[in-house]
Amino acid sequence: MGERNLSLLMDFYELTMANGYFKDNKHNQIAVFDVFFRSIPDDGGYAVFAGLEQVIEYIQNLKFETEEINFLRSKKIFGEDFLTYLKTFTFHCDVYAMKEGTPIFPHEPIMVIKGPILECQIIETMILLTINHQSLIATKAARIVYAAQGRGVLEFGARRAHGYDASIFGARAAYISGVVGSSNTYVDFAYQIPALGTMAHSYVQSYDSEYEAFKAYSMTYPNQAVLLVDTYNTLKQGIPNAIKIQKEVLAPMGCELKGIRLDSGDLTYLTKEARKMLDAAGLQNTKITVSNSLDEYLIKELIHQGAQIDSFGVGERLVTARSEAVFGGVFKLSAIEVDGELVSKIKISDNVQKTTIPGFKQVYRFYDEHCMAEADVITLFDEVIDSTQPYHLFDPNFPWKNKLIENYTVKPLLIPIFEKGKLIYELPSLKAIRAYAKEQHASLWPEVIRLEKPHEYYVDLSQELWTLKQSLIKKYKK
Amino acid sequence: MGERNLSLLMDFYELTMANGYFKDNKHNQIAVFDVFFRSIPDDGGYAVFAGLEQVIEYIQNLKFETEEINFLRSKKIFGEDFLTYLKTFTFHCDVYAMKEGTPIFPHEPIMVIKGPILECQIIETMILLTINHQSLIATKAARIVYAAQGRGVLEFGARRAHGYDASIFGARAAYISGVVGSSNTYVDFAYQIPALGTMAHSYVQSYDSEYEAFKAYSMTYPNQAVLLVDTYNTLKQGIPNAIKIQKEVLAPMGCELKGIRLDSGDLTYLTKEARKMLDAAGLQNTKITVSNSLDEYLIKELIHQGAQIDSFGVGERLVTARSEAVFGGVFKLSAIEVDGELVSKIKISDNVQKTTIPGFKQVYRFYDEHCMAEADVITLFDEVIDSTQPYHLFDPNFPWKNKLIENYTVKPLLIPIFEKGKLIYELPSLKAIRAYAKEQHASLWPEVIRLEKPHEYYVDLSQELWTLKQSLIKKYKK
Repeated sequence: MGERNLSLLMDFYELTMANGYFKDNKHNQIAVFDVFFRSIPDDGGYAVFAGLEQVIEYIQNLKFETEEINFLRSKKIFGEDFLTYLKTFTFHCDVYAMKEGTPIFPHEPIMVIKGPILECQIIETMILLTINHQSLIATKAARIVYAAQGRGVLEFGARRAHGYDASIFGARAAYISGVVGSSNTYVDFAYQIPALGTMAHSYVQSYDSEYEAFKAYSMTYPNQAVLLVDTYNTLKQGIPNAIKIQKEVLAPMGCELKGIRLDSGDLTYLTKEARKMLDAAGLQNTKITVSNSLDEYLIKELIHQGAQIDSFGVGERLVTARSEAVFGGVFKLSAIEVDGELVSKIKISDNVQKTTIPGFKQVYRFYDEHCMAEADVITLFDEVIDSTQPYHLFDPNFPWKNKLIENYTVKPLLIPIFEKGKLIYELPSLKAIRAYAKEQHASLWPEVIRLEKPHEYYVDLSQELWTLKQSLIKKYKK
Repeated sequence: MGERNLSLLMDFYELTMANGYFKDNKHNQIAVFDVFFRSIPDDGGYAVFAGLEQVIEYIQNLKFETEEINFLRSKKIFGEDFLTYLKTFTFHCDVYAMKEGTPIFPHEPIMVIKGPILECQIIETMILLTINHQSLIATKAARIVYAAQGRGVLEFGARRAHGYDASIFGARAAYISGVVGSSNTYVDFAYQIPALGTMAHSYVQSYDSEYEAFKAYSMTYPNQAVLLVDTYNTLKQGIPNAIKIQKEVLAPMGCELKGIRLDSGDLTYLTKEARKMLDAAGLQNTKITVSNSLDEYLIKELIHQGAQIDSFGVGERLVTARSEAVFGGVFKLSAIEVDGELVSKIKISDNVQKTTIPGFKQVYRFYDEHCMAEADVITLFDEVIDSTQPYHLFDPNFPWKNKLIENYTVKPLLIPIFEKGKLIYELPSLKAIRAYAKEQHASLWPEVIRLEKPHEYYVDLSQELWTLKQSLIKKYKK
């Protein structure tokens, strides 16, 4: 739990394959791998890319020390020269990635790794683990923040996360997608994500009465007291006590009750009643926070019913992405160098969706004249799109579904991160990533953002790439 | 990602409450907190307790260093004397817990923490986070191992886990419940959980042909080659190539093909065909491993259909417990000392299941004469059960449902772990925990283990505790 070198956090087959490549003197053969995913969690219209910073950190810290080498040696299947290679491992790959906070769509490469095949292979597990986790939570958080329609969403899931990193990096990913803070103090300390909180039922119970507990807390935090009003009886006791605290404790100090929190009962009914009671007591500025198994569906429904809620504390259903707890990013070979030339590779599957897109690639996002995202087009890496000319978009599965677009701008989404193993990307601050995510979100049409049956955003192939793919399919099917 | 002190990984309100207790000079008031859960994931019949070792490690490493203190000071809400207290923090609590690997049931305390209320409070988040995560995965793994009916289950989920700890401690929890190994090399290095693996599609694709790839791999690992046969066409190419490898590469070396792996297609049909082809080639000992979105339901169905499978590689659906990704352990006050005497506390809810069980408690498991678990009875901590006398079991919600049992043995399940802050529990090895879990599992009746509509195991209250609870409910309802 203290210091840790995670370099051995990789699927064991990466190492057995690597040792095989090394033995065959094939380890420096240049290969290209894509990271992409096949379907959006919760049948959503888009996902949010996150985790790049931790991937970079991992790659920069990748090293096999004596302890790790001795462990591998004890397996008695790795060659000594391979172990020496690992001990002196240096990274030489080119890595391209989308920026964190970018809306991403199925089948397009969100990262591309190009370099010696052994080096690409041994970073597979950690790249996927990091990207899959944070993109999962960033995507879920974006849905929840959208459902809250401008009301604050607080990440409260630490106690139900899948381990320490899940809580820490889950809060980070959620923050990228717009939550206003987290209950986890550590992420404020380490990532400046505002730590937020109120009080627990046990605090209230530990005093002789609810009133005594509220009083003690309000005297300690006169400007920041958010009182948990549902320990005994919300309407008959909790809220009347909170109002009494305002009159008897806070007003004499010149302060005003910051908020109340409800964690049980029917949140629509109770918050409407609470609002009336607070307003009648002159506490129009006192905010109402609720929690208790919230997610985007319940939040949307509560708002639809006119619940009087200022912010939502969302726990387990955000931090575990409970409704669909898996983000299915994969890592697939797309090209390999033979005699100094990149040869595109494809993996055919009877399941059309599982057939890969071959070649070393780039992704371009097309925006209309109002900066709204119209489509993504996957191209070969070197293709240039001349945006002064009309562009022919077509569905790669049904090419007769096509249109000619004009008056567009276009942006390459895959940015160089490492060049020949050297980091060349300047890492943005977390706040900057969050702002970028918000801006990118604003470029999506409402029909793509919608929670229920969203429009399927276009992810097309360039003519050149489409032709390459068809030719490889034909070749393999012979 | 490197060194880390997780002491600030706690909900921020733990600290604001702690500071409040400290200011009110209430921080050394003795309190008792229970950890328990309310429902079993996937409507199962039992859960498996895991994570205690990491809780112990956390408590032993809990310390607030200058950096952490300075961070808290910057919040401008904590008193200097409180910060000094944290800086010199030492732990004084008594901690009781069930042993890792114990089958656990709703509402019974699985851990009890007794000590200064401030100390209890600030370890809440990490205890829940640790226990909830590992118990979730141990419970899911137990279901999957049960479904596999003695065939090996391999934990293959690293790339889809919720962060690094989720992969590491998820594999640990799964190992406790009987998986035979993990794809994650780190857990072999750190926890001696056997690392297992085969090869990736990219490995096969990186060679000129599938045969060349198989040949290279088999020559490197002649005694351990498990060939992935579905890159191109399982029946027409993959298995014939594997058989050819046996004849042309392995047999001349005096070796035998260890296994094949299938990762796509219809696993029932393909494994039946594969078995026939391997057997016809004299490869009766060659094992068949399958993977691809497996879980307990699909495994049960594949076996039901007569699929010829020796082991199952289970990825995302195990490591994320995808079907129900939340284990809902909670941390509730059950007693507090007033004037030197423990006063039992209850939290009433209109939802009967959410009303807590008051008091400082113990849990006894009753076994019949064949060592099968008959019921758990929650008692006050000091109650003694005289197993030479018949015992009156009754349903705490419907007391007329009762029976008198005789010829039983009884075991207290809550074991002392820390005594006045000092670790007094000797940590068992992971292998010992795994053996204990297996033995405990064998004490459960088949009707409790069943995946579908299991029998509800009895968790009762002693007469004394039941009476206490009723009296507190009456008191609060007045």
